[in-house]
Amino acid sequence: MNYVAADVKKLREETGATFADCKNALAEAKSWDEAINILEAKSDRKAKKIGEANRETKEGGIFSYVHHNHRVGVLLELNCSTDFVARSESFRHLANNLALQIAGAATTPKYITFEDVPADVLEETRKAILEDSAMERIPAEKRDDFINGRLKKILGEQVLMMQPWVKDETTVVGDLVSKVIADTGENIVLRRFSRFALGE
Amino acid sequence: MNYVAADVKKLREETGATFADCKNALAEAKSWDEAINILEAKSDRKAKKIGEANRETKEGGIFSYVHHNHRVGVLLELNCSTDFVARSESFRHLANNLALQIAGAATTPKYITFEDVPADVLEETRKAILEDSAMERIPAEKRDDFINGRLKKILGEQVLMMQPWVKDETTVVGDLVSKVIADTGENIVLRRFSRFALGE
Repeated sequence: MNYVAADVKKLREETGATFADCKNALAEAKSWDEAINILEAKSDRKAKKIGEANRETKEGGIFSYVHHNHRVGVLLELNCSTDFVARSESFRHLANNLALQIAGAATTPKYITFEDVPADVLEETRKAILEDSAMERIPAEKRDDFINGRLKKILGEQVLMMQPWVKDETTVVGDLVSKVIADTGENIVLRRFSRFALGE
Repeated sequence: MNYVAADVKKLREETGATFADCKNALAEAKSWDEAINILEAKSDRKAKKIGEANRETKEGGIFSYVHHNHRVGVLLELNCSTDFVARSESFRHLANNLALQIAGAATTPKYITFEDVPADVLEETRKAILEDSAMERIPAEKRDDFINGRLKKILGEQVLMMQPWVKDETTVVGDLVSKVIADTGENIVLRRFSRFALGE
């Protein structure tokens, strides 16, 4: 698409990507939304690459958030590879956003990633899906995809990284982590969390 | 014992008891230490009485403590009976002291009270005590007391309420709770805690 310097500036502000990446994305894309998609895909790939290259996450920190009325609180461990990143602003900001999400999400997260859902919970949910009358209308060859889609939809609500972010529902929580992985060049992993609600 | 007004003042400062209680204790006691013991026994009895009369603890709060280097953190739920006490200075001060203790104790507490030690852990420890050669020297009629004493000593190190307080090793943590129960007139119960140490 045709673009001017102000577009590059605006895109940088919106996505946080570099100047060069924004220019390339605008040149390649046919629309503003496509340019954003290109940058997001690039950021995801980058995060994945860093994650694979740099799996060791022994540093990081313990962080907490307690609501001002003391009725809900969260403790979490967020890991990265170096003490340098552990002390960085963006890492601590991410830790705070994750704690706020766990405290305030409409559905309290039970699992960190979809891989953390236990086998028996998956099996039970799969059974419930198979018993659903809607299954009959799905052609046999599409049933596996349908079941997997339903599993992710039903259980994903309880998976922290798949939840819509409480501060901006167009973003999922996992994207916040991917973004900081891309920014810092280190793998970042939420290792565990506790959430206490008064009297629960 | 003979005492002067300054003694009453000093005793009040040391124990936090009322003026009348301090005067009575000094009149009754033969020594300074005995006066303190009388006041402590009275405070314990008072705490117990309140605890029994007012067991329902549905209020309280969630509190956290994270060490400034973010390498250890604690989340806890402390319960009481009314929102009024939950918002009081002494209740919040107690919550903070408990969190600090859990974070910083020489032995990380595993249990809140001795009653929380699981039966299999008790049984295993009892077996180890029976195998100890020292057992042979204990007269048969004193063995039960000996075993119970050893159990409390060995496992008590991991029981939060039995630990020496990190800020003053002459006090056990349970006494901090008893004192606030006596002060507020409400039963106070530490319901649960989580402790995270980085990379542990």
